[in-house]
Amino acid sequence: MSINIKDYIRTIPDFPHEGIMFRDVTTLFLDPRGFRMAIDQLLHPYAGKRFDKVVGLEARGFILGGAIAHQLSVGFVPIRKAGKLPGQTIAQDYKLEYGEATMEIHDDSLSAGEKVLLVDDLLATGGTAEAGIKLIEKLGAEVIGCAFIIDLPDLGGRAVLEKLGMDVHALTSFSGE
Amino acid sequence: MSINIKDYIRTIPDFPHEGIMFRDVTTLFLDPRGFRMAIDQLLHPYAGKRFDKVVGLEARGFILGGAIAHQLSVGFVPIRKAGKLPGQTIAQDYKLEYGEATMEIHDDSLSAGEKVLLVDDLLATGGTAEAGIKLIEKLGAEVIGCAFIIDLPDLGGRAVLEKLGMDVHALTSFSGE
Repeated sequence: MSINIKDYIRTIPDFPHEGIMFRDVTTLFLDPRGFRMAIDQLLHPYAGKRFDKVVGLEARGFILGGAIAHQLSVGFVPIRKAGKLPGQTIAQDYKLEYGEATMEIHDDSLSAGEKVLLVDDLLATGGTAEAGIKLIEKLGAEVIGCAFIIDLPDLGGRAVLEKLGMDVHALTSFSGE
Repeated sequence: MSINIKDYIRTIPDFPHEGIMFRDVTTLFLDPRGFRMAIDQLLHPYAGKRFDKVVGLEARGFILGGAIAHQLSVGFVPIRKAGKLPGQTIAQDYKLEYGEATMEIHDDSLSAGEKVLLVDDLLATGGTAEAGIKLIEKLGAEVIGCAFIIDLPDLGGRAVLEKLGMDVHALTSFSGE
């Protein structure tokens, strides 16, 4: 890598609450070279692989997923927070720091056997990504790869996804910073 | 147009509440030909025009905006509901059916004089798009075009945006249905 993805990522202390170092990818997305590099690098390990659909996690995963689906000339499928998708959905709960939340996918958005690339900006505890994988698999589709801009290895998300048999790809990581 | 965009759009009655005919573009996005056609047609009137940034409105505008920014090789900037963007923002209120809501943009995401394409899936009353235009213009940038998949002319959004001097482009419309 000639240019470093990390140089485009801004850190905002104490967002959304005190003690969190928020890794902000909007500064990456707004730079034409940065955004293109991110999409290229997210796809790099999958060269020659065939995907039927790109699934993006709400909301920053929509920005990446839209670009990647367009680049691959495949369809895009959103996974959203409960109550946002208008059609018939299936739901999956996941744990938050305090309490639980629910993600949903349209039950007719993937077909059995379809090969899926799951994308989001950030892998932290892996809760939303795990919920996403379960939703995709409940519809009979197969997650071929999980691609993220940022991995926060201290939060253990990669291990959670690898335990599910996932191939996890992240462009950069922030640890103990 | 050889294929009709409308054939890919699903109508869900009574979502998000009774009496609303919700026009669902997820069935367009999940089809590879439909998604590619939508992106191509959204960009069609702007052939030869130069944009510096694509701005997408949360959340379905992120899917389109990510794809379009990538296609044009320009940066992407999100406009989000209040409290979602981590950096310094400027805010703009807009009217809802009942009450008000607020949209925000990062105050360093656009530079004075930059040329912007604003995208979203649906133009209804034009409230969020109008708030978006005001935010972009507050930062000194110029909205060259406002592109939507769907126009609901009965709700008057096009007139609201045209009154602001906007060039409004929509791929299809639903009226009195």
